[in-house]
Formats: sequence, structure tokens, C-alpha cells
Amino acid sequence: MNIEMIRAAAERLKGHARRTPILTSPFLDEIAGRKVYVKAECLQHTGSFKFRGGWSAVSSLSDNELKTGVIAFSSGNHAQGVALAAREHSAPAVIVMPADAPHVKIDNTRALGAEVVLYDRATEDRDEIGAKLSAERGLTLIKPFDEPLVIAGQGTTGLEIAEDMNALGVENADVVVCCGGGGLTSGIALALEAEAPTLRVRPAEPENFDDVTRSLAAGEIKRNERLSGSLMDAIITPQPGNITFPLMQRLCGPGIVVTEEEALRAVGLAFERLRVVVEPGGAAALAAVLFHPQEFQGDAVIAVATGGNVDATVFQKALATLPA
Amino acid sequence: MNIEMIRAAAERLKGHARRTPILTSPFLDEIAGRKVYVKAECLQHTGSFKFRGGWSAVSSLSDNELKTGVIAFSSGNHAQGVALAAREHSAPAVIVMPADAPHVKIDNTRALGAEVVLYDRATEDRDEIGAKLSAERGLTLIKPFDEPLVIAGQGTTGLEIAEDMNALGVENADVVVCCGGGGLTSGIALALEAEAPTLRVRPAEPENFDDVTRSLAAGEIKRNERLSGSLMDAIITPQPGNITFPLMQRLCGPGIVVTEEEALRAVGLAFERLRVVVEPGGAAALAAVLFHPQEFQGDAVIAVATGGNVDATVFQKALATLPA
Repeated sequence: MNIEMIRAAAERLKGHARRTPILTSPFLDEIAGRKVYVKAECLQHTGSFKFRGGWSAVSSLSDNELKTGVIAFSSGNHAQGVALAAREHSAPAVIVMPADAPHVKIDNTRALGAEVVLYDRATEDRDEIGAKLSAERGLTLIKPFDEPLVIAGQGTTGLEIAEDMNALGVENADVVVCCGGGGLTSGIALALEAEAPTLRVRPAEPENFDDVTRSLAAGEIKRNERLSGSLMDAIITPQPGNITFPLMQRLCGPGIVVTEEEALRAVGLAFERLRVVVEPGGAAALAAVLFHPQEFQGDAVIAVATGGNVDATVFQKALATLPA
Repeated sequence: MNIEMIRAAAERLKGHARRTPILTSPFLDEIAGRKVYVKAECLQHTGSFKFRGGWSAVSSLSDNELKTGVIAFSSGNHAQGVALAAREHSAPAVIVMPADAPHVKIDNTRALGAEVVLYDRATEDRDEIGAKLSAERGLTLIKPFDEPLVIAGQGTTGLEIAEDMNALGVENADVVVCCGGGGLTSGIALALEAEAPTLRVRPAEPENFDDVTRSLAAGEIKRNERLSGSLMDAIITPQPGNITFPLMQRLCGPGIVVTEEEALRAVGLAFERLRVVVEPGGAAALAAVLFHPQEFQGDAVIAVATGGNVDATVFQKALATLPA
């Protein structure tokens, strides 16, 4: 896993992934006590950075592998990213989703051309279903984060951040990344190591689901006790990956843990001040920047807003945090 | 008023205005029955295209004029655009606002460094207050739309649309623009005439406030009967401008009128499918594209999402239009 793989992914993504903007607001700067730059990956195709990793992996397949198709497990953003990347390569995609996933996510994944296979979380084993389907049909599994081609795709976000910050003259700043399994976090860290080495990545995680923060502090992989029950569902994973963790350990500063209330307030402020829709899990980094200013030094900080796939009911909770 | 003024404005705006992205969604394409490209000016500084015109005008002032300061009348987006442009030029800005304007807009304008002068709509005359302040202090008035430097600034949006559509190979498509007094509409039309002459501008307006649509149909300036009472307040003006109307008459296709309900549904779909926050008046063009497909021909259409300054309460009405 190295910078050349990220550069190669950037070549494959050119003209396909969206170059997302850096957004700013003097009102957010005032809250944070420093200049805040927000990389708006919620504006990426399918509403999250996951399209980058999906495209990176799918575009690396042989013609035969494309013809046979791909498979992914996901109830959320990875599903949609892989589904769209597969469709644009005319490759069949099977997405294994829990039957109790929100209907809108199931519908969206189907609308992007994927075959959705539902399973019962209580009585069926996801990996078994996936292994059986892969074996029967010869499908290629696209893992959500612990896969070099996926990390390389997510890392292209870091190349863009490096280019934009170099152009703006921003140095010695932290780049805060909403962190699940660490695919995006480690990919950005690798890109910055090569292209903007004075920028340092900091993972942001939900309270009670801070496996990466604890793993970094302990120097070894720690698991989350629970795997559900957070509004920041998009960034809940059992533990950091075997590929991503050593990269984060070598390149990242300490993790930052945010509460659900802080994430909702960040979603509300992104609505009001940046006019973008961010999901709670995609707002963890912005929440860290706005509400944990003592974690940072210097006069600038970058937050990656990783996704914007949020139900109206959850979004209304975020709007309710704004002053009337 | 010519293309050279727009090109000159683009030079002045370089590095100051944001180059806003073109957003797309296969779900919106399906509703519209053709490929939909959304120019997201809601992501511009201060949340609307008005910053372009404000910057264009303020950056053209002499050092003495800047030192003395500027004045503008506005209860909304123009106020904030001028206030920020003035602040970044270290020029004092006086914004005359009705005392019953939403507190958040008054607070925002003040927070951007402007001196806000409130007046009572019922008992005081705005123009009189403004004329008195201008005379006393020598302030330069920045008109909201019927001013060549402002039109030139708004027209830079058209240069970007032309460049992006030329790169995408989009020809013979309509460019639908949310239209108030016509500054943005005529500016974009002038830019496209020079840079992408097969793209045609179509103004989009609110039901009952369709002065431009009726003026274009009649071949002469028509007024609106009412001046308040629309959720699309950002694009309500008494009548088209004396400079903007002849430009629109020469360059634009027929206007398209949308209902409040259609605008709210477009705001909801922009939330769900594009992850951007658009105000109802800024969604008129997208509403026209999505819900009046018979108005268009060909396989592509461009909608300009002009602004994103919307209260949470209004936004909730838009979220309520989405299927649960």
C-alpha cells in the first residue's frame, strides 16, 4: 500500500469521481476559533466518498471479472458507491443488505441497478450468504475498507486536499476525518505524507464507538463493545482493519471523540452556514473541529464531511439544534 | 453592457468567488426525463450568487470610494453579498433593512461587518433614508440588479456554465435561471451568447409573481400586482429592470412559472438527491426542470440553484414533501 497506488487510482477516477469543493464560512471560523476548511465529500456521487473506493476497485477488474460481476456487504454508503461504479462499468452488482435496513436505502441501491439480496440479521449469517453467492457465481468481493484498491480510491480525497491547501498556503494544520474502519483515514494520511507532509490526519469517532481512538492510544487493535445504537451509523465498525490500522498508527495523531449531540449540532451548522446536507456520521469531523477546539493548534484546520445520506426525520433533529 | 464586462468581472472575482460545482443525480434525471445539470450557486460565499455581483461592483470602486463606503437596500441575499464583499475590501457598508426582516438575516448581515439601518416599512420611506445617508456620508449605492457591474458579476456564472457544458459536450440545451429583477438571468444570457451560443436561457418565476414571463410574452415591461406573500421571496421584484429587460428580450426563451408546492418539492429533492440546501426561490429553476418537462426539448437541461439561505421552519416544509 503506497502513494503510487493512490496516484494510479486518481488517474482511473479522473472524469468519473467529482472533484468536491472546499467550503468555508466566517461563522464557523468564529465558533472554532480558527479558519475552518470543509472538504465536502457529501457532494460526491451517491452522496459519500465511498464512490471513490468503489470505482477504484471496480475499474481495476479484468473484462472477465467485470462481466461476471461484483458483490458487497453494506447497509449504506458503500452499497451505493459500489452499485453505481459497477453500473457505469456495465458490471452486475450484488449487494447483501439486512432486511431491516431503511427501505429508502434498499430502494436506492436497487435503483442504481444492483441486485439486492436481503438477509435476516437474527437468523442468517451474512458472510455465509455472501460466500455462497460468490462461489456459485464467481463474483468478486469489494470489501468496504480493508482492501488496498479501496484505500487507494479513498486516498484520492487526500490528493485533492493537499493540492487545495498547498494553493491556499495552509501548512501545519490537522485534517480531521470521520473514521469507521479507517479506509478513508489511512488513504488520506498516505496521500498527505507524500504531498503535504506538514498536514496531519486526526480520526474523529462517535462516543462509545471509538475503537480507532482507543487502538491508537493502546498501540494495538481494540474492538467496540456494541455495533449499533448510534446516529452516526455510517462510521460504526467492529474494529480498525489489519491494513488500515498500521497506516493510521504510523501517520495519524490522536483520535477525537464526539457526542451525538455535537454531531447533530454540526449537521445543523453545515445546513445553516455551508448549505450542504451532511449525515451525523459525516459530521463527526466538523463536530470535533467546532466543539473541541482545545484539541488543535494553529490558525487553520480541515474537516472532511464524508457523507450526506440522511433521512428527513434525523435531519429534523439536527435542525432543532439551531436557535429559532 | 457586453461580454467584455463579464470577462473583466471574472478577472476581478478570480480567487475570491467560489467556482461552484455542477451536481447531478440519476434520480433527478429519471424524474425530468432527461439529464439534469444543477449549477449549485447556493454553495457560493454568503449562500447565493449575489456575492458575485457585490464583489464585481465593490472591486470596481476607487480607493476613495472604498474608504467612504457603500450602501445597499436588501432584506436578504444582496445584503449579505455586498456586506462580505465590502468587508474584504475594508470598505464600510451600510445596509438598509426593514425592521421586520428575520432576525437571523439582520444578525448575519451585522456579523459580516455591515452597519444595519432599520426602517419601518409602514411609516418610513426606504429610498428617502438611503438617499439621505448617501448624501450625508458620500456612500456609493450598489443596486441589486439594474446595474452593469452587478450584471457583469452575475454573468460570470454563465462563463462557468459555458466552460463546463463545453467540456461535457452538452449542446442545444436550455439553461433555466431563477429570476427576480433579471440581473443573473441577463448576465448568464450574455455570457452564453458569446461562449456557448447553442445554450438558451429560460427564466423561472413563482406563480403570481411572473412579471418577467409576462413582460417577455407581451414585449413590454409588466409589473407584479403584489410584492409579498411568496415562499420564493428571494426572487420577488416589482418588475424587470430597464437594463436587464432588453437583454432578456433579445436573448431568452419564454419564462416558466412554478407553484410554491413545486418549489418545496424541488428543495426536498435537492436535499435528498444532491445533498445541497436550496431556498424555495433558489429552487424555482429546478422545479421547472423536474415538473414541467414538456417545456423542454432534447436530452439535457441545466438548472441554476441560485441560493440556499432558508430558515429551518421553511426547510421542514420541504422535507415534509418527501415520501416517508
